[in-house]
Amino acid sequence: MSEVNLSLEEADALVMRVLRANGCDEANARAVADTVMAAERDVCHSHGIFRIPGYVASLKSGKVNGAGSPTVSKIAPSVLRVDGDGAFAPLALERGRQPLIDLAREQGIAALAIRDIYHFAALWVEVEAIADAGLAAFAWTAASPMVAPAGGFKPLFGTNPMSFGWPRKNAPPMVFDQASAAMARGEIMILSRDGKEAPPGTGIDSEGNPTTDPDAILAGAQLPFGGYKGSAIAMMIELLAGALIGENLSFEAGEQDNRDGGPPRGGELMIAIDPNRFGDPDGWLDHGEKLFERMLAEEGLRLPGGRRHVNRTKTPDGGIHVPQALYDKVCALEE
Amino acid sequence: MSEVNLSLEEADALVMRVLRANGCDEANARAVADTVMAAERDVCHSHGIFRIPGYVASLKSGKVNGAGSPTVSKIAPSVLRVDGDGAFAPLALERGRQPLIDLAREQGIAALAIRDIYHFAALWVEVEAIADAGLAAFAWTAASPMVAPAGGFKPLFGTNPMSFGWPRKNAPPMVFDQASAAMARGEIMILSRDGKEAPPGTGIDSEGNPTTDPDAILAGAQLPFGGYKGSAIAMMIELLAGALIGENLSFEAGEQDNRDGGPPRGGELMIAIDPNRFGDPDGWLDHGEKLFERMLAEEGLRLPGGRRHVNRTKTPDGGIHVPQALYDKVCALEE
Repeated sequence: MSEVNLSLEEADALVMRVLRANGCDEANARAVADTVMAAERDVCHSHGIFRIPGYVASLKSGKVNGAGSPTVSKIAPSVLRVDGDGAFAPLALERGRQPLIDLAREQGIAALAIRDIYHFAALWVEVEAIADAGLAAFAWTAASPMVAPAGGFKPLFGTNPMSFGWPRKNAPPMVFDQASAAMARGEIMILSRDGKEAPPGTGIDSEGNPTTDPDAILAGAQLPFGGYKGSAIAMMIELLAGALIGENLSFEAGEQDNRDGGPPRGGELMIAIDPNRFGDPDGWLDHGEKLFERMLAEEGLRLPGGRRHVNRTKTPDGGIHVPQALYDKVCALEE
Repeated sequence: MSEVNLSLEEADALVMRVLRANGCDEANARAVADTVMAAERDVCHSHGIFRIPGYVASLKSGKVNGAGSPTVSKIAPSVLRVDGDGAFAPLALERGRQPLIDLAREQGIAALAIRDIYHFAALWVEVEAIADAGLAAFAWTAASPMVAPAGGFKPLFGTNPMSFGWPRKNAPPMVFDQASAAMARGEIMILSRDGKEAPPGTGIDSEGNPTTDPDAILAGAQLPFGGYKGSAIAMMIELLAGALIGENLSFEAGEQDNRDGGPPRGGELMIAIDPNRFGDPDGWLDHGEKLFERMLAEEGLRLPGGRRHVNRTKTPDGGIHVPQALYDKVCALEE
């Protein structure tokens, strides 16, 4: 596959130009580009430039407000809300971040309820930013209905990711970010393209029968990871990122969406915790390291996010590799 | 198998007598018995009277303080701590419960860090009590090292359960409570007793090879549910219930424990959320029901905890059935 090698700066400039040319104001373009480029820097292509056509489609269709101005308010002593003003998630998250950090430090624990946003990114970016400030953090978001509950036959849940971050000593924070679906939808699409089978447990056909045919799964429903346990987590995320904060459940988002190829309207819940306020201010950081040391002492075991941390040391010099077809597509969106 | 049929009142009286005869003061005995009897009422035998010999073993060995008096303090504006005073978990949880509910209502979100306890019960009991008060709640606890991280070979994590509860309209709260291990240890023991094989993915032998031999798994390590995703959750629970609050990680608890058959010393973290303070006070309850309605509309699908709710309507009249051997064993502990 032919590829284009770009420096991080070149890629960032391209992303900015495309977003600005399609209706993002400077603040929204900058926030989206920062999120896209964090993924590219860490070689997480699925949430990098690959997403730009979807972002642009939702700007062009008028679904997303490229000049939305999210506002932060305190709705309870330990709860903040961001009204996203119909923009993409990154600017809403950026505006909520420092207030969330400050409130968690003051209260010990604080929540950030984000509404009226269009989330098309990985959660680890925003969780890592909170963990970089020395806090533990959770994030949950729901999306379009694509996953059947364990024991069910119809898509009801989104792929509903959860992310958790924990600060480390002399290392980037440990951050994991995992979908409640057994397999990412994009991976199933790639199996279909390549004529390969999906592993058992990935999904069911439209009759509800288990299948390894990727096309049948895409027409039917994905399944949660880990059976009924992953299903319970997917359900919990619907409640937290939907019902709790007054935003769409995945099936509501699906009914409302214009299917322009971009993200549906949804919500996100974050919780930040200041470990310095939980009773072991001098010990917690070393204590976490004791767990990580045991894990890393086993050959072949790595911490979640470890590969990203290696990748990010390389891309500042080596740049990134974008498939030629994607590069051409994105460049064409600049006009 | 021969069984003894007891009314809930008879069973409760037996449990109380046994706990009191072995060194629990009235308050601790009452709190443990309430927890054990909640499990029996819902026909969750694995956390009911079945646990009494373990509770008693830890009283007899002197590991657990049967007259411990847990104390609650506020350590940050939204964070409470219970010092468990070396008692079993139930009294610490009972004393922390109303303060946690009150603080979550005041602040929107609040945490309860419980230290110096011995947890030998299911988490759903305490989460349901918070959800009964109209709040959403999480609980996490760690335990002895029995589960290898995904990709690893040595037991490091406990079976590390997480529980989540959400209030319902005109129904008991939806509460799930699930171990991070693929299978409960007790179930693997039963497979061993019956000469049956464990499903693939349950565990590995002491060389790190996948096996379906239950004895090899018990001598080796259990595996997390859902591969690396369940493993990440187990790791998160170590950090939350251990490092964050200044209590044992599972491997530390294992090193410290006297192996008397009762629970190791550990911690627990709970978070309570008042949905009335998250921006949709008039809508959240009905909104959650919309999700549950979709789930329940599918034939054969039930909500987590649904079986328990059916069971609890029957045991007040029909009583419970205790295996004769267990009944005899527990009665003998009264002397």
